[in-house]
Amino acid sequence: MQDGFETITLGVEDGIATITLNRPDRLNAFNGAMMRDLVAAFDATDADEAVRAVIVTGAGRGFCAGADLSGGAATFDYDQSGGWNGAESPVRADGSVDYAHPAVRDGGGIVALRIFESRKPVIGAINGAAVGIGATMTLPMDFRLASEGARFGFVFSRRGIAPEATSTWFLPRLVGIGQALDWCYSGRIFGAAEALEGKLVRSVHAPDDLLPAARALAKDLTTDTAAASVSLLRRMMYAGMGASHPMDAHRLESRAIWARGASADAREGVASFLEKRAAVFPDGVSEAWETFEPWFDSPEYR
Amino acid sequence: MQDGFETITLGVEDGIATITLNRPDRLNAFNGAMMRDLVAAFDATDADEAVRAVIVTGAGRGFCAGADLSGGAATFDYDQSGGWNGAESPVRADGSVDYAHPAVRDGGGIVALRIFESRKPVIGAINGAAVGIGATMTLPMDFRLASEGARFGFVFSRRGIAPEATSTWFLPRLVGIGQALDWCYSGRIFGAAEALEGKLVRSVHAPDDLLPAARALAKDLTTDTAAASVSLLRRMMYAGMGASHPMDAHRLESRAIWARGASADAREGVASFLEKRAAVFPDGVSEAWETFEPWFDSPEYR
Amino acid sequence: MQDGFETITLGVEDGIATITLNRPDRLNAFNGAMMRDLVAAFDATDADEAVRAVIVTGAGRGFCAGADLSGGAATFDYDQSGGWNGAESPVRADGSVDYAHPAVRDGGGIVALRIFESRKPVIGAINGAAVGIGATMTLPMDFRLASEGARFGFVFSRRGIAPEATSTWFLPRLVGIGQALDWCYSGRIFGAAEALEGKLVRSVHAPDDLLPAARALAKDLTTDTAAASVSLLRRMMYAGMGASHPMDAHRLESRAIWARGASADAREGVASFLEKRAAVFPDGVSEAWETFEPWFDSPEYR
Repeated sequence: MQDGFETITLGVEDGIATITLNRPDRLNAFNGAMMRDLVAAFDATDADEAVRAVIVTGAGRGFCAGADLSGGAATFDYDQSGGWNGAESPVRADGSVDYAHPAVRDGGGIVALRIFESRKPVIGAINGAAVGIGATMTLPMDFRLASEGARFGFVFSRRGIAPEATSTWFLPRLVGIGQALDWCYSGRIFGAAEALEGKLVRSVHAPDDLLPAARALAKDLTTDTAAASVSLLRRMMYAGMGASHPMDAHRLESRAIWARGASADAREGVASFLEKRAAVFPDGVSEAWETFEPWFDSPEYR
Repeated sequence: MQDGFETITLGVEDGIATITLNRPDRLNAFNGAMMRDLVAAFDATDADEAVRAVIVTGAGRGFCAGADLSGGAATFDYDQSGGWNGAESPVRADGSVDYAHPAVRDGGGIVALRIFESRKPVIGAINGAAVGIGATMTLPMDFRLASEGARFGFVFSRRGIAPEATSTWFLPRLVGIGQALDWCYSGRIFGAAEALEGKLVRSVHAPDDLLPAARALAKDLTTDTAAASVSLLRRMMYAGMGASHPMDAHRLESRAIWARGASADAREGVASFLEKRAAVFPDGVSEAWETFEPWFDSPEYR
Repeated sequence: MQDGFETITLGVEDGIATITLNRPDRLNAFNGAMMRDLVAAFDATDADEAVRAVIVTGAGRGFCAGADLSGGAATFDYDQSGGWNGAESPVRADGSVDYAHPAVRDGGGIVALRIFESRKPVIGAINGAAVGIGATMTLPMDFRLASEGARFGFVFSRRGIAPEATSTWFLPRLVGIGQALDWCYSGRIFGAAEALEGKLVRSVHAPDDLLPAARALAKDLTTDTAAASVSLLRRMMYAGMGASHPMDAHRLESRAIWARGASADAREGVASFLEKRAAVFPDGVSEAWETFEPWFDSPEYR
C-alpha cells in the first residue's frame, strides 16, 4: 500500500496488514525514523477499508531490541542527541529545562498512543527479543503472541532511565500492579513461558507457527463480524476501562447503540440471524468513525 | 412482595430474594417491559429490610437469549421501533439525530446501572443461554454462577451494533482487557468451562445444583455479618475501583468508618467478638444509607 | 537508624530496612502510637539514601491482629475513644457530625497513604495473623509474602464497620472486584493457600524461610538497578494505574524520560551495557525526587 518506509515494511494480504520492523542487522532497534514510520503505517492501515486487522512482527532474529544505542552513552540525553523528534531544545539559556515544552516528549509514547488509537485490531507476533521500547510498544496492541524463543525485558531500571511508551498505563492493567512492579523494578530479561504465565502474552508458538497463528486469530476476529462494530469496540472498551463511573460508559454506549442500531449493518445482522445465514455487512469503518470520533476522548499532548 | 410484573417473578424466602426472568417460551428475551420490571424489582429489594441478598435466574431452558428480535430487522433502529423507552424521537425534522436528547439511551444500561446501585449483594444464577444483554446484564452483579449447560456470547459485532449495558466499564475490569476484546471482537458463543477459565463466572454447577449453590453463597455473605456493612461495602468498593487516587477512597472511607464506628452495629460487633459469641446486629440498611447516600457519586444521565 | 519508636523497631542491614511491628503480647494490634510510628518509620527510610528497600514484618506469632480492641465496645466510636488522631471532636453541640471536619479521618488510611508514597519498594513479610488493618495495611506494599501459618481477614462486616486503609482502592485492583467482594462481604478468616490462589500474596514460605525470601526479593530488585529509577518507578506505575487516559501517563513519562535520560545514571546505564560490565549508578534518590515531586499527584486530605 504505502511506500517510502525506511525502517519497516507494510503489506496487505487477504484483509490483514502486516507491519514488519525491518532493521534485522540491528535486531530492529528503535530510532526516530522507526517512530515516524510506525505512525505513518497505522495512518495507512486506518485509512484503508480493505484492512480489517494489523499484525506487527520483526524481521530476522529479533522483534525489537530496544532503543538504538549506537549514539553511545548520551543516547537518552535528548538535548544532546536531538531526541526522537529532532525538535528545538527545551533547555533554557541558564541550563534549566522547560518541561512543559512540546519537545519534551517520549517518542515511544507517540507510537504507543498511535497504536492505542488504531481503528483496526492489532496483534503483536513477537518473534524474538522484545526489550525496552520493543516490549512496551506491544502493550497497546490487543493481543501479544510469542515465539518460543521470544525474550522480554522492561529494562528501564538497568539503564538508569524511566518507564515509557505509556507502559505505566497499560502494563499494570494487563498483568496486575504486582507483576508489573516485579518486572520493572528488577529490569530482568525473561522468556516466553514467564510472559505467558504472567498473562503478558496470549499464547506461545513454535517459531514457524507464530505468524500463521497470528493470521488465524486475525481471521477469527474478522469473520462473520461487522467491520464498523469491531473498529469501534476497541476504543469503546478502552474508554470504559478509563472511566471512573459506569455512567460515563453508559453515555457513550447509548449514543453508540443508537447510531449503530439504525445502521444498515444492524439490519443485516438481525436479518441474517433470523434467516440463519451468514451476514454480509455493508458499512465501512471510516463512515462510522465520522459519527463516533467526537465522542472519543483524544486529548492533545500538553 | 411486589406484584404486577409482566416479564419476571420476584419471591423472597429466608432473607434471599429471587428474581426470575420469566418469558420461557422466548428464552426470556429482553424487551422494554423487562427493563421496567427489573428496575422495579431492585427498587423493591432495596426497600425491603428483610432482603439481605438477591439472586437473578431464568425460567426454563435459557437465562436470557438477548434482545427480543420479534420486531425483525429494524429491532435496533430505535427511531423506528420506539426504543426501550418509547420516548419521543431524537431525530430532527432534517433527519439528523440529536445524540444529546434524553431518549438516546441504552435500555440495557438502565438495568445495569440499577443493579450497580443495588443496596444488597446480587448473585447471577445463569441457568442457560446468556447472550447479548443476557450476558451483559450479569456483569454488574457481584457473582456469576453458571450451570454446566450455560452459554455466553457478547455478540454485538455479529449483529452489527455496539457493546451496551455498561459492559465496556465492567467487562475489562472483570476479565481483563485482552479477554474482553477477544470475546467482543469475535462475538462467538462459548460455554461455561471457558467462562470459568476466563474468570467471567465464579463456579460451574450441575443444573440441579445451581440454585442451591447460589443460595448457599447468599447465606455465606449474610450470616454473622452486619446488613448495613454488607450493603455499603458494595458501593464503597466500586467507588474505590473508579477513583483515580487512593486519597479519594480515603475520604469516603474516613467518613464511613466514623459513621459506622459510632453505630450500634459496631458496638455489637466488638462486644460479641470480645465475648466470643455470635453477633446480633441491630441496624437497618435504609437508615445507614440516609447518611451515606450523599457521599456516593451517582451522576445523572446527560 | 531512628530511635524512639514505641510500637515498632526499625533496623537497616545491607541496604534493606526492616520494620517490625512490635507488640507481640497483643499480636501487634494497631493503635494510634503504631500509626504515628509507621509514618515516622517510612519518613526515615525515605530520607536514608542507604536504604534501597523496606521489609515490614511482625514480632512473635502474629503479623497484626487488627485494631487494638482493649478499649472495648466503643473502640470504633472515635468521638468517645478520641480516635487515632486524638484531635478535637467533629461532633457539633446538637449531636450532629461535621463529616468535613479534618478529625474525621481513618488512621489506617493515613498509614496506607504513607506506604503508597514510599520512595523505596516495600515488601510485606506476613508471618502470622493479618486481620482488619493488619490485612489492609499490606495492600499498598509492592509485594506480600506469607508464612504457611499466616491467616487473613477483611472482617469489617463482622465488626459492623466499613472497609478502611484505602482498601477499597487497592484490594479490587490487586485481586479483582469479585474476589474483593467475596472476602469483604463474608468477613471470613482464610489461610495462606487461599491468599496465594487469590493473588493476594506472591508466595508462601515455611516460617523460617519467610524473612530470607523477603530479603532475597529485596536484593533482586536492588541489584544492578539504579536507585533513582526504582524509586520513581513505583509512583509512576501507580499514577498510570490511576489515570483515565494513556495520554496522562504519556505526559508524566515524557518529563521522566527527559529528566532521567539526561542523568549520570543513564550515561552509566548505557555505557555499562555497551561495555558489557556491571553498572555503578551514581545518582541519589532524594535529588531525583526534587525534580519529580511536583509532577506526582499528592492531593491533600479534605
